[in-house]
Amino acid sequence: MRDVAVIGIGETAFGELWDKSFRDLGIEAGLLAIEDSGITAQDLDAIYVGNMSAGKFIDQEHVSALVADYSGLADQHLPTVRIEGGGACGAIAILQARMAIASGQHDIVIVGGAEKMTDVSDARAGEILSATADQEWESVFGATFAGLYAMMARRHMYEHGTTREQMAQVAVKNHKNGALNPNAQFQREITLDTVLKSGWVAEPLTVFDSAPLSDGAAAVVLCAMDRARKFTDTPIRILGSGQASDFLALHDRRDLTTMDATVVAGKRAFHAASLTPEHVKVAEVHDNFTISEIMAIEDLRFVKKGLGGMATEEGETALNAKVSVNTSGGLKARGQPVGAVGIAQAVEVVRQLRGEAGKRQVQNAEVGLTHTLGGTGATAVVHLFGRAN
Amino acid sequence: MRDVAVIGIGETAFGELWDKSFRDLGIEAGLLAIEDSGITAQDLDAIYVGNMSAGKFIDQEHVSALVADYSGLADQHLPTVRIEGGGACGAIAILQARMAIASGQHDIVIVGGAEKMTDVSDARAGEILSATADQEWESVFGATFAGLYAMMARRHMYEHGTTREQMAQVAVKNHKNGALNPNAQFQREITLDTVLKSGWVAEPLTVFDSAPLSDGAAAVVLCAMDRARKFTDTPIRILGSGQASDFLALHDRRDLTTMDATVVAGKRAFHAASLTPEHVKVAEVHDNFTISEIMAIEDLRFVKKGLGGMATEEGETALNAKVSVNTSGGLKARGQPVGAVGIAQAVEVVRQLRGEAGKRQVQNAEVGLTHTLGGTGATAVVHLFGRAN
Repeated sequence: MRDVAVIGIGETAFGELWDKSFRDLGIEAGLLAIEDSGITAQDLDAIYVGNMSAGKFIDQEHVSALVADYSGLADQHLPTVRIEGGGACGAIAILQARMAIASGQHDIVIVGGAEKMTDVSDARAGEILSATADQEWESVFGATFAGLYAMMARRHMYEHGTTREQMAQVAVKNHKNGALNPNAQFQREITLDTVLKSGWVAEPLTVFDSAPLSDGAAAVVLCAMDRARKFTDTPIRILGSGQASDFLALHDRRDLTTMDATVVAGKRAFHAASLTPEHVKVAEVHDNFTISEIMAIEDLRFVKKGLGGMATEEGETALNAKVSVNTSGGLKARGQPVGAVGIAQAVEVVRQLRGEAGKRQVQNAEVGLTHTLGGTGATAVVHLFGRAN
Repeated sequence: MRDVAVIGIGETAFGELWDKSFRDLGIEAGLLAIEDSGITAQDLDAIYVGNMSAGKFIDQEHVSALVADYSGLADQHLPTVRIEGGGACGAIAILQARMAIASGQHDIVIVGGAEKMTDVSDARAGEILSATADQEWESVFGATFAGLYAMMARRHMYEHGTTREQMAQVAVKNHKNGALNPNAQFQREITLDTVLKSGWVAEPLTVFDSAPLSDGAAAVVLCAMDRARKFTDTPIRILGSGQASDFLALHDRRDLTTMDATVVAGKRAFHAASLTPEHVKVAEVHDNFTISEIMAIEDLRFVKKGLGGMATEEGETALNAKVSVNTSGGLKARGQPVGAVGIAQAVEVVRQLRGEAGKRQVQNAEVGLTHTLGGTGATAVVHLFGRAN
């Protein structure tokens, strides 16, 4: 495959952005990425958009054509593609765009992700998220997204001795990182007590174990490696990618404490890149709930199965520790505009590998990883990024 | 780019299928395509799904993982991708899968498309379709999908002298073809009078100028050309593909009687294949309304601009005439399960090029074309298929 690099990144602030529409957000992130890359819009060959549920949140499908149009690019008649795969849509979009460049069909592609979640009630947003689980066997019976993750958390506590305090430490760490990120939805540190004493969403998960509803967008410009240095001195290479699926409904899974999709996607990405988890110094993983991060760092083999909670408690995933996890603040503190998540993770990793992460800069990071989930883990995508030598 | 061929095709009957769910339909089409191809499911590298609005029609997002799961393939942990681009989603999915194979990432991929539209009221289905137009500038003010196409029809009549009778002849022809297709939703011929005397949907378009709401699914198996003959003696090569976007809202377009996205997508596909419209003997074009087919055959350069109505009236697009258009019955008579449309078009063209189209077989067809629209023409995709020598 022809090598592909990230040559531009852009993101909006994440939060409850009632003064900005979906199209405003998508265009803001896209223009920032184009400006950062040094290309002009005329250099683009295609537009990829990751989006989960604009059809439900804002009653608009066909959002990739919308973004092309409102970016002022309609006259270029670019091919546009919207990808959906639950929360993994942005990460899948990167993978598809990467293959489009690798195939030789395109040279330079922008990949954006956006979601506008706060124009509906919180209850309605919860329903919309639940539609990425199994409608006929889970959602229709009242299983909420949080409820399904709570079942995984409960089982993880039972099987591996994970404690509520250990899960809460994920939130404490990610809020600490988010406090260093000017684009994060939450930029305040929190204490263990804050998490433990906040209200239940679905026992054993509290409000502070859960990522928020957010508006926001992020974008990356991908370029064939052989053209990348025309635009930037610091192209960040996509070293390997892996995607995997699993049973949609929890009750069919082999093990509630492991996401097989993450395990397989991780193996595929590391194999493709000829790397191991030990090479990774900075990782953005899908912490839509605190238990998700614990399972992710285990399933990606940063720590042994069952030790994710303890490793977090002991600080192994803190900034500049063994592996710096969710330096952006993660979904928990940076925010969770679903379609933007996978792209925003890539933006953060690229920023770290370029050495542009400011107060949250990870030292000597050569390889970074993103991990993104769809639904309750029926889709997982892993990308590995590295500095191009 | 590495060459890619279609080695398997499958489709369900189209219609109001109240005894079948979305997942039933998707799996039926997929298994038929796998059986037809001679591969086993273990040979698959990935699953692509074209779907417009399962989130709204059946409250289920993340349908690509769903299809993998319910096909019994969860244990293979295949990467799955859902593509949405209004009505063009199936055709875009084929293009993405083609690039994935061309890149070397995959060798054999199944591409399915499905929509389950009749579980909601007709009025609600109309609203859902309208969400592929511009929500903020069209739909929200009450512009329906049919109303927007009616404006194009009216302008085409004004500019080019197209008549209601000429538009109606599209429906007559496509019902005549549909009567020869055992999977078509409507298998009865109709007369010109039937179309002209049926009720207005949006003047000058009647019920019989409009494609129906449908349930259905279709699938194709794509394979790297260098491996295709292991499975079939009649691989059908994808000779060239083109995709283009345009302004989302009609009022921004250069000309209401031409779809620039179709013009550009067609040029890109013909250029990539080093072919001209004269090479095409069989074509499936997007006739969601009769005016759409007239514009399509003009914009694809089968006839000169403005002469689409006359050419139809004179029989140039009938079975085994100059170019056989919508031999399947088209969206009008075969049916319009949106996500399946682009795939079903490919299924029909492959069937024709293989010589397996029975009573509607086009003689000596070497090259076939599919043309698929998203929204009111903000997306268009053209694929060219040919027998592999």
